[in-house]
Amino acid sequence: MKILFETGNQGKLKEVQAIFGALGHEVEQLKDEYPEIQADTLEEVVVAGLEWLWNKHKMPIIIDDSGIFIHSLKGFPGVYSAYVFKTLGCPGILKQMEGIDERKAEFKCCAGYVDSEGKITTTSGVCQGRIISEMRGSGGFGYDPIFVPESHEETFAQMDLEEKNTLSHRGRAFRSLAETMGKE
Amino acid sequence: MKILFETGNQGKLKEVQAIFGALGHEVEQLKDEYPEIQADTLEEVVVAGLEWLWNKHKMPIIIDDSGIFIHSLKGFPGVYSAYVFKTLGCPGILKQMEGIDERKAEFKCCAGYVDSEGKITTTSGVCQGRIISEMRGSGGFGYDPIFVPESHEETFAQMDLEEKNTLSHRGRAFRSLAETMGKE
Repeated sequence: MKILFETGNQGKLKEVQAIFGALGHEVEQLKDEYPEIQADTLEEVVVAGLEWLWNKHKMPIIIDDSGIFIHSLKGFPGVYSAYVFKTLGCPGILKQMEGIDERKAEFKCCAGYVDSEGKITTTSGVCQGRIISEMRGSGGFGYDPIFVPESHEETFAQMDLEEKNTLSHRGRAFRSLAETMGKE
Repeated sequence: MKILFETGNQGKLKEVQAIFGALGHEVEQLKDEYPEIQADTLEEVVVAGLEWLWNKHKMPIIIDDSGIFIHSLKGFPGVYSAYVFKTLGCPGILKQMEGIDERKAEFKCCAGYVDSEGKITTTSGVCQGRIISEMRGSGGFGYDPIFVPESHEETFAQMDLEEKNTLSHRGRAFRSLAETMGKE
């Protein structure tokens, strides 16, 4: 089946093509930035985005949304991780966490799919870990330099891409979505 | 003219009824929470909200959205002020501002109106001021205890409601909107 994946990111496109290609689906890029709503959960953002895109294209479409949720900050920056990265960045998060011993955090991704009849399915992928007290590593992007996944010592920014992809919330969400959809 | 004002807040409803009532307009409450989009500006949030409400009700409707924009934090928390208040609160903002001398901030409100034909008008109100280094006062809500308006010494939370209303970004935005619309 032909499916559109809304993204401006070529790396993500390749990752998704590999996962869904293995099941016989053909994934093509769609560039059409949908409005993201303000909401408490990634799922709400993804469902609203898929509704908007489906009303416009009436085609099977995949999208995703991710964020980092820090336990001791009531989930902040969560759904607004991209905005907070643009304004406060990693240094702002480190400052906010000064003197706080509880460092648990999780990267979450919600992947969503709308089929040719408008039916929506979402799946989640989570990577548990902790916020360290300084920035380490130069790979990755966003909050990668301050996040160490559970049972690891290196940050996402210190890992090679292959290792990060096996652990990552996004890979998990997309693999779970692909399993739910099944083979062509 | 009869206009609907979307709000769950009785205090805001009375304020808006007073301002528009003086021009002969009858303002009634509408309770229908519209989706707020993620955007860089309050104007974008208000315009998208009015489009959504107008498509549904096809009636003249007023809405507003507010936020506090801190200069040295690239405008943070801005459009996401409500979410940041729920998670970090005033103590989190004070922590983020520790050691920063540049304390300028502004409360902004965007008020918007869609007329019976779907035409949208927006106006803005701004209250310049600064973030102080501790919480003061028990009135108001949100960031009021840490914000001192320009040419004043008291925080919004230390002022009586009448004084705050004459200075406030929301009053300014609504009065400007009422002027733009003119008399009945």
